[in-house]
Amino acid sequence: MSKWEENVRKVIPYTPGEQPAEKNVIKLNTNENPYPPSPMVSVSDIEIEELRKYPDPAASVLVRAIADYHNVKAENIFVGVGSDDVIAMAFMTFFNSEKPILFPDITYSFYPVWAEMLGIPYETKPLDEAFRIIVEDYKTPNGGIIFPNPNAPTGVLLAADDVEAIVKANPDSVVIIDEAYIDFGGESVLPLIDRYDNLLVIRTFSKSRSMAGMRIGYAAGCKKLISYMNDVKYSYNSYTMNVPSIIWGTKSIKDDEYFRDITGRIIKTREWFREELISFGFTVLPSAANFLFAAHEEIPAERIMELAKDSGIYFRHFGGERIGNYLRITIGTDEDMHKVADFLRHILMRSK
Amino acid sequence: MSKWEENVRKVIPYTPGEQPAEKNVIKLNTNENPYPPSPMVSVSDIEIEELRKYPDPAASVLVRAIADYHNVKAENIFVGVGSDDVIAMAFMTFFNSEKPILFPDITYSFYPVWAEMLGIPYETKPLDEAFRIIVEDYKTPNGGIIFPNPNAPTGVLLAADDVEAIVKANPDSVVIIDEAYIDFGGESVLPLIDRYDNLLVIRTFSKSRSMAGMRIGYAAGCKKLISYMNDVKYSYNSYTMNVPSIIWGTKSIKDDEYFRDITGRIIKTREWFREELISFGFTVLPSAANFLFAAHEEIPAERIMELAKDSGIYFRHFGGERIGNYLRITIGTDEDMHKVADFLRHILMRSK
Repeated sequence: MSKWEENVRKVIPYTPGEQPAEKNVIKLNTNENPYPPSPMVSVSDIEIEELRKYPDPAASVLVRAIADYHNVKAENIFVGVGSDDVIAMAFMTFFNSEKPILFPDITYSFYPVWAEMLGIPYETKPLDEAFRIIVEDYKTPNGGIIFPNPNAPTGVLLAADDVEAIVKANPDSVVIIDEAYIDFGGESVLPLIDRYDNLLVIRTFSKSRSMAGMRIGYAAGCKKLISYMNDVKYSYNSYTMNVPSIIWGTKSIKDDEYFRDITGRIIKTREWFREELISFGFTVLPSAANFLFAAHEEIPAERIMELAKDSGIYFRHFGGERIGNYLRITIGTDEDMHKVADFLRHILMRSK
Repeated sequence: MSKWEENVRKVIPYTPGEQPAEKNVIKLNTNENPYPPSPMVSVSDIEIEELRKYPDPAASVLVRAIADYHNVKAENIFVGVGSDDVIAMAFMTFFNSEKPILFPDITYSFYPVWAEMLGIPYETKPLDEAFRIIVEDYKTPNGGIIFPNPNAPTGVLLAADDVEAIVKANPDSVVIIDEAYIDFGGESVLPLIDRYDNLLVIRTFSKSRSMAGMRIGYAAGCKKLISYMNDVKYSYNSYTMNVPSIIWGTKSIKDDEYFRDITGRIIKTREWFREELISFGFTVLPSAANFLFAAHEEIPAERIMELAKDSGIYFRHFGGERIGNYLRITIGTDEDMHKVADFLRHILMRSK
């Protein structure tokens, strides 16, 4: 070992979901949207010659479009390279207390990774027997709070009133609500940013806007919260959003009709497919996301994963005490989900 | 003040160079390349439908193309969202000693900003009377070393042998050489990564490859250095490079002929324009970059900046004891630089 290695930051590397190289697979393992981005997003929007210049560091056009969409001011919006970048920046900006930050024991697996990397103390709060967040648990002294709503990887939604109760009970902490999946049936607390100066709401273009490949995320909060985040961003990397992200992100958020159409279709497919899973003997958590979290009563999740992969179908599986037998299944097109239902019906018959 | 503000990270916000909104200006203030990206970079390379999927988190295609270009292995290359992202990630990964990191007193203004933000102790070393780095200064105990070569904002080059002497004298520290401007006439130390496991070389597509708008930077180093950086990257944000960056970055680096042509043209224009400036009574530092750093004997830099701006010409000016009277002038096309020479000739005549 070289001596310089003593000063290398120690981290727990995160493993992203598998990206299969083959083309003709049904990829339901990373919660991608099965529909293409808005038809308003076009290659002809980009002038290659313009790429020689730096992008606008404030991404003003995109920030303005997002602000208009949510009926807030540009000063209320912060943009970043996917919601992971935005959340990590928020951790860095707001979670500098000696008190632990709080998040659920079953949640987005990046939270403990960021906390460890940045040296932030944290405490996890167990979900209840139905995998719900217990509001009272978040009324103890803390250095900040974060959770996704709907939660990941369960898809379980916390009612907006309950989220508000947590925000209200913690005026001395920044409370971050990660609404990556809110567009698939949940009620957003974004309209509350006017009332609570400690509320930061995070969104992404990766799921409901079908642009995971572009890496666009944003935060909404009071002017002060956003300005603190911008200070940290400008002292880290001034130019984060590249020209195509700014241009295509703007095009996408302006196309509300298409957005409502595809999110509506995914919700419809999810509800139908959920009934199918239940009829096959799965326990399926109620989901307000673009995925279902389901465990079969007889066949272990790992066995189903394996058989599925052999048939070119990819699900996601997480280890862990309570969720070790659950599969996370992204909702694809109706056509894809019919194939998946056929596959499951087939293996369940065989196993009898 | 709300109580949560007590836990907000304190930073020195960085101010990027002005991006004028008007179109018909001669913008020589942010070291952009005046020529368009490689003609191999085409909008038809992008399939909008594919943007619904996450990019390859390893950006393998781009990493492979960069490795091939430099005749190293893929395991020797790390990519990020512009060289600022790559350098900040390297600070986070390697600069965790209690000993101060070292960099020149006159250098890229982001280094002290990152050090402050990440709580890294640092010490600056004065340049000599000709704005050169003094090799002996970097042979004292330290927690790491970083400098740009050629240096910013001076453009002054340190010979590859001298850089190697610094790397060799510091086997216990990671030495980062930021070669953002090396393609404009300097000798790179990138080929030395095989010999020194503590050498990390940073490059960018923003200057010589004319793709500032795409935000693509990379680091080259031994397998171990790169793998430590990837561990930190994956625990911060797995998916940083978006689909267009990966595709267009790959196209660009494969077009060596065009690259040599435009960098050659810029060098030629720089040498001609440097003679012009000298004939106008400017002191001009020798430059191996795509800009010149020049001070006029009679007219203050701020006055020239002002007059230039009125004529639609943008230069950059930095405050500071020794460089307060210098202008940083990016090299544009021959046509642009002829206009700038005419402008300078004109104001100098008027001031007589």
